[in-house]
Amino acid sequence: MADARARRAFREAALKGAGELPVNVKFIIEADEEYDGEAMAAEFLKHGKKLACDVSVVSDSNFPDIDHPAVTLSLRGIQAVEITITGPSGDKHSGEWGGMLYEPIDVLRWVLQSLKDFKTGKVLIPGFYDDVVPPNAETRAAIAQRPWNEAEIAKTLGVKKLFHEEGFTVLESGTLRPTQQVNGIKGGYTGEGFKTVIGNKASAKISMRLVPNQVPEKIYQLFERHVRAVVGDMGVVEFRSFGAGKPFWSDPKSPYVQAGVRALETAFGKPAIMLAMGGSIPIVPPLVEVTGAPCVMMGFGLPGDNLHAPNEHFPIANYLGGARAAAAYLNEVATRVGAPARR
Amino acid sequence: MADARARRAFREAALKGAGELPVNVKFIIEADEEYDGEAMAAEFLKHGKKLACDVSVVSDSNFPDIDHPAVTLSLRGIQAVEITITGPSGDKHSGEWGGMLYEPIDVLRWVLQSLKDFKTGKVLIPGFYDDVVPPNAETRAAIAQRPWNEAEIAKTLGVKKLFHEEGFTVLESGTLRPTQQVNGIKGGYTGEGFKTVIGNKASAKISMRLVPNQVPEKIYQLFERHVRAVVGDMGVVEFRSFGAGKPFWSDPKSPYVQAGVRALETAFGKPAIMLAMGGSIPIVPPLVEVTGAPCVMMGFGLPGDNLHAPNEHFPIANYLGGARAAAAYLNEVATRVGAPARR
Repeated sequence: MADARARRAFREAALKGAGELPVNVKFIIEADEEYDGEAMAAEFLKHGKKLACDVSVVSDSNFPDIDHPAVTLSLRGIQAVEITITGPSGDKHSGEWGGMLYEPIDVLRWVLQSLKDFKTGKVLIPGFYDDVVPPNAETRAAIAQRPWNEAEIAKTLGVKKLFHEEGFTVLESGTLRPTQQVNGIKGGYTGEGFKTVIGNKASAKISMRLVPNQVPEKIYQLFERHVRAVVGDMGVVEFRSFGAGKPFWSDPKSPYVQAGVRALETAFGKPAIMLAMGGSIPIVPPLVEVTGAPCVMMGFGLPGDNLHAPNEHFPIANYLGGARAAAAYLNEVATRVGAPARR
Repeated sequence: MADARARRAFREAALKGAGELPVNVKFIIEADEEYDGEAMAAEFLKHGKKLACDVSVVSDSNFPDIDHPAVTLSLRGIQAVEITITGPSGDKHSGEWGGMLYEPIDVLRWVLQSLKDFKTGKVLIPGFYDDVVPPNAETRAAIAQRPWNEAEIAKTLGVKKLFHEEGFTVLESGTLRPTQQVNGIKGGYTGEGFKTVIGNKASAKISMRLVPNQVPEKIYQLFERHVRAVVGDMGVVEFRSFGAGKPFWSDPKSPYVQAGVRALETAFGKPAIMLAMGGSIPIVPPLVEVTGAPCVMMGFGLPGDNLHAPNEHFPIANYLGGARAAAAYLNEVATRVGAPARR
């Protein structure tokens, strides 16, 4: 806690409780944030027993707006892959050869159409959903508390409507459900004007967002097997994996999560809610695996903070409220969840 | 005819016939070749009656190899279009938004899959085949004379197999049948590595090769209407036409075409064949329209000549043979087709 104001906020909040730190606290400080988290995951494994705890708390998430303090319940995992399809040994003239070749861009479009259904949003890779746990009623109800005006969101984004997977709300589709995106495509002539060329290569950067209990390595294998089957002998396909991360869900009924909600309410003086997050925080799943303890995500950012961008900023109200929430959480865990053993 | 050898070859061949030019000849010399032919088409219209003739001869085609002198029977037309699909007002994070947006690359993949059938090679744009004339038995038989070893072609191209439209041979699919190519695609992040981005734009350069009696302008309209219907309110689509050319077929039974075959046989001392060409020669269809006369395509290039590329070359045998063929053609027309009226 960087300055006197924050220390004072923490002390005052702590004094309202036990008057001193009511539980043991261990700090893990990551200087490698926003890379892939592999260095931290390796450290976790090295330090094994020293990390033993009853709950871990990570502050790397957002409130949906300044009026809604929030605990983040879930993260999606990811598997990213680049595929490159090669056809003839060089570019060909599309007048001379059009209609006679398995063109790499054609093979790519057939691969892409085989990955996701247009109307339902379902991923079509065989086996993709085998390990997927559907969100339970408590989680669906919990994340629906979030302020969420779809007409307004569409207007802000400049689109006419939002997408959703069949059987799920827009918000669930973007957080509690797995999906598949094409993050980049390239093939043939892409400069100004037109060339009647059949490009001899076409590529796509593809990512799949995962939910429990999908395992990135298994998803990668299913993806590769499926794409190879579609391509067959229409071309040569190469795969390059660009990193994987596991998904994470916590239980909205967990006493440690409930303690987080109450701590936020104490610290901010407003009702707090629970959120689901569509992206990934790579260190969370290995932290949970190594400690065997639940993880509670209480972060204090706002969507408009320009994260990692020019003019990044952070509201002072949330800075001081965050300090108070940290103290309140310790008191909540000590007094209402039951003080964990001192280790 | 650039040098003494060619003039001598022409004179000797002409003397074998009438001993002088047996018919009237008009020369049209194009200095704008390989652009879109629009300047020449405009000149044709300006000079109208002066172009009146019984047959036009164009030398801008190939033999399939040095052993097979050939008259080219047909050209495909073309309509080229670039489409750009725009979604949200800026790029979005695919973790945060994946599953909730109509992503421009997704909309593009749904457009592309709606254009051509994977297995049959049929173009799926409603109305696309309405004006298509199927090739008749004579034409199919004529173009099948061409030396054509598919295993060898595939090997040379470095591919495992060739494509064809259902119901047609590979060669027919690439010459006598209309088709649709994607000549370039671009969207999202296309650099080295990976970015979990949802790009706010995706584009494709698309060309359709046309056969009689498809009209490029009508095909453009069908294409635009179809793509707009697929995109609907999933995004905003913009169209940019990149030129059009009409298709051209001649009749293998035409006496002027038959005269070409005989002239080639006289000039080269080998059996001559008829070819169909998959590409376009933009000046041919307007020449036929303005003159109302058939066009016979007798070109003397070879596939390995490096056309418009470094080290472009041309066999001397075909250069001199071409001069002899020009003279032989005049004699054929005068003596066997019947000398046209002198204008």
